Amino acid sequence: MHGEIIAIGDELVSGKVLNTTASFAANKLFTAGCQVTRITSIGDNPDDIEECLLAAIKRSRYVIITGGLGPTTDDITNEVTSKALGRPQVLNEMILEKIRRAKQRSANSVFLREKLAWLPEGAEVLNPEGRAAGYLLIHQDIPLFFLPGVPKELEDHLINRVIPMLNRFVSEKIYIRQQTFKVFGLSETEINSLFEKLESSQDGLSIGYYPNFPEVNVTATVKGRDSGKVAEIFHMACNTIEQLLGRHVVAVNQETLEEVVGRLLLEKGGVLSLSESCTGGLVSQRVTSIPGSSGWFEGGVITYSNKSKEDFLGVSSKTLSLYGAVSSRAAMEMADGVKGLAGTGYSLAITGVAGPSGGTTQKPVGTVYIALSTPKRTVAERFQFTGTRHMIQILAAETALDELRLHLSYGTYFHCNRPA
Amino acid sequence: MHGEIIAIGDELVSGKVLNTTASFAANKLFTAGCQVTRITSIGDNPDDIEECLLAAIKRSRYVIITGGLGPTTDDITNEVTSKALGRPQVLNEMILEKIRRAKQRSANSVFLREKLAWLPEGAEVLNPEGRAAGYLLIHQDIPLFFLPGVPKELEDHLINRVIPMLNRFVSEKIYIRQQTFKVFGLSETEINSLFEKLESSQDGLSIGYYPNFPEVNVTATVKGRDSGKVAEIFHMACNTIEQLLGRHVVAVNQETLEEVVGRLLLEKGGVLSLSESCTGGLVSQRVTSIPGSSGWFEGGVITYSNKSKEDFLGVSSKTLSLYGAVSSRAAMEMADGVKGLAGTGYSLAITGVAGPSGGTTQKPVGTVYIALSTPKRTVAERFQFTGTRHMIQILAAETALDELRLHLSYGTYFHCNRPA
Repeated sequence: MHGEIIAIGDELVSGKVLNTTASFAANKLFTAGCQVTRITSIGDNPDDIEECLLAAIKRSRYVIITGGLGPTTDDITNEVTSKALGRPQVLNEMILEKIRRAKQRSANSVFLREKLAWLPEGAEVLNPEGRAAGYLLIHQDIPLFFLPGVPKELEDHLINRVIPMLNRFVSEKIYIRQQTFKVFGLSETEINSLFEKLESSQDGLSIGYYPNFPEVNVTATVKGRDSGKVAEIFHMACNTIEQLLGRHVVAVNQETLEEVVGRLLLEKGGVLSLSESCTGGLVSQRVTSIPGSSGWFEGGVITYSNKSKEDFLGVSSKTLSLYGAVSSRAAMEMADGVKGLAGTGYSLAITGVAGPSGGTTQKPVGTVYIALSTPKRTVAERFQFTGTRHMIQILAAETALDELRLHLSYGTYFHCNRPA
Repeated sequence: MHGEIIAIGDELVSGKVLNTTASFAANKLFTAGCQVTRITSIGDNPDDIEECLLAAIKRSRYVIITGGLGPTTDDITNEVTSKALGRPQVLNEMILEKIRRAKQRSANSVFLREKLAWLPEGAEVLNPEGRAAGYLLIHQDIPLFFLPGVPKELEDHLINRVIPMLNRFVSEKIYIRQQTFKVFGLSETEINSLFEKLESSQDGLSIGYYPNFPEVNVTATVKGRDSGKVAEIFHMACNTIEQLLGRHVVAVNQETLEEVVGRLLLEKGGVLSLSESCTGGLVSQRVTSIPGSSGWFEGGVITYSNKSKEDFLGVSSKTLSLYGAVSSRAAMEMADGVKGLAGTGYSLAITGVAGPSGGTTQKPVGTVYIALSTPKRTVAERFQFTGTRHMIQILAAETALDELRLHLSYGTYFHCNRPA
């Protein structure tokens, strides 16, 4: 069941916007057994859209068209489709009624142009309750899915409508099982060499690696016609992968590292506080992005200057003058300070040189001290990261959260004390 | 001089890897006046590659093909091109010699297969000194650029070879001027309706809108053959757009809102501190993402619990019990508290209900109080945002920074005090 994606928008072909939605859709379709063989990005140009659409219908078993369904003048997908397929635009009364009702509630009527209600003849609205009018058109037996380009709306349509509907068109059921392992601390090449023998040994198993900085995502996919055999190979593969990657797996599937840390803290009844310098709030922001994090996160401080390290946390001026703000001692005093202030059992502190300036011979750009404080002790370790300012901040935040994860799971404190 | 890009690789159509290099190339080509009208991603499939290449040659004035030039078995671009264009593979002695020399130096011989030296007849190596063998093939008067898919190598080839060479093929020079306005507080549709008459009235001017949540980017592009006229229309259009959008333009071109705020603070010699509750460090993280922000940012606190609001900032327990943590009073005490603690002239405080739970009838999810404290006074305002937890956090952070920008630029304090 091979298909293709046509993504419409001047912003895509001028390179102003990355085509992330097409990539997301391709990935979901691949996992669902409806592989995409071509992704075409074209501008808001009627001739290009028409040519692309007609060629895709001839070539593919299904087509997904994204973008150009909105209310503005450059949104021309419906109009061009009508002309290309010889299907006049028909006023969809249901959408029109929704627009009218919404207009009564909202003064902001420019959002709600009647234009949105004119669809090519034969269009079946995919989500009658939703806001965006994605629709299905079956033309010459080929299902054409017209979806809004806005990532959130596309995602919703794709998962809840398109993929279940595509299964209607599949003659033979293919079973697919997939799991993603989020790995930190090993490069793609290192993972690849660990796995060399795994893939070829298993029927229907494929392993994908893709970097999702600072993590590498490893995906195990098993496809086949026999559901029992697929499940068997899948479980065997997952077990082997878990053994090979060990503690480097920070999370699995949709879960994130910060969610894992939150879950582990809740299990232990522990509460976290944070003191960030060079990461400037990045760890706090990751933690508080999780609904319910108030159950295990008390608060934090961002001590971006020496003065704020003293004033907010009571880091001693002697430590700052003798060892500097970027030091093991300062990191530990920051961790102890915020733990005392917030009255929590756990704290993390991060202080370093994110760059681009501020580096010295002893402490070049990328030098970061991370302190972990638990109910038992406070320990700090020095790390040397490389990359841009932003990359160093991301690596420091990930490392801090990961050290807390390792401590909560295995009782370790950084590499020096980590059991083999 | 319209062209297209063909990107080859299974990882692109399975959605495992984002096609960032094609987007980068499209942007560079657009700016150089060699606009791309189509980007096609296809897998490592000979039939698809051949069909795509032949169609592109018929349709476009130039074609850029990326990927599939490497040494591994799935790299088949050269072989397929030879067959599709009827140009036998010819051994390139220069590349072969380079491979031989490199093999003597390096043990890692798998990277250096002779395969890399077999190019389609007529291929002109683009960078004889470089490592990767990108090449130009002129077929039926159409320049075909075969470039390595590795981002760094593609970038190098594109900027130093392809764009200068494309100018050889351009009979007539096209001048392009472009500016991007980052807009907050107006929807795409609202902006579109403001602009309705602008575009049609000017020769060679096009206006693009694309949402980049929570901002909308508006791009004015002027193209033409007469550089003087292009500059004239461009300046007129930019002036009109600035007038139409007014204070809603938070930044221009590459600059970000947080950079604008930093620049304005530096001009005034002001220093900022932050107190964040529902945004959990998002504002701090945006501020400290900017190199040199230590010149105008002192530090911040993330007071995620009532207790931390009292302990860190001295918000009174009376305020918390009478008005609640999500209140105008609490926001102002947070702003004053952190200002006092950090000893800064300016502070922002944010407290609200990001959801998904925690809302009440009086203060539903999305209720956010933002306080702005300046050397003269402290003022708070209530906002009602909609969307997911993450969207509410982003909107609250953007609004806080934007209110500070407006104050620093125009002396205003929120809507209530804002001059018309």
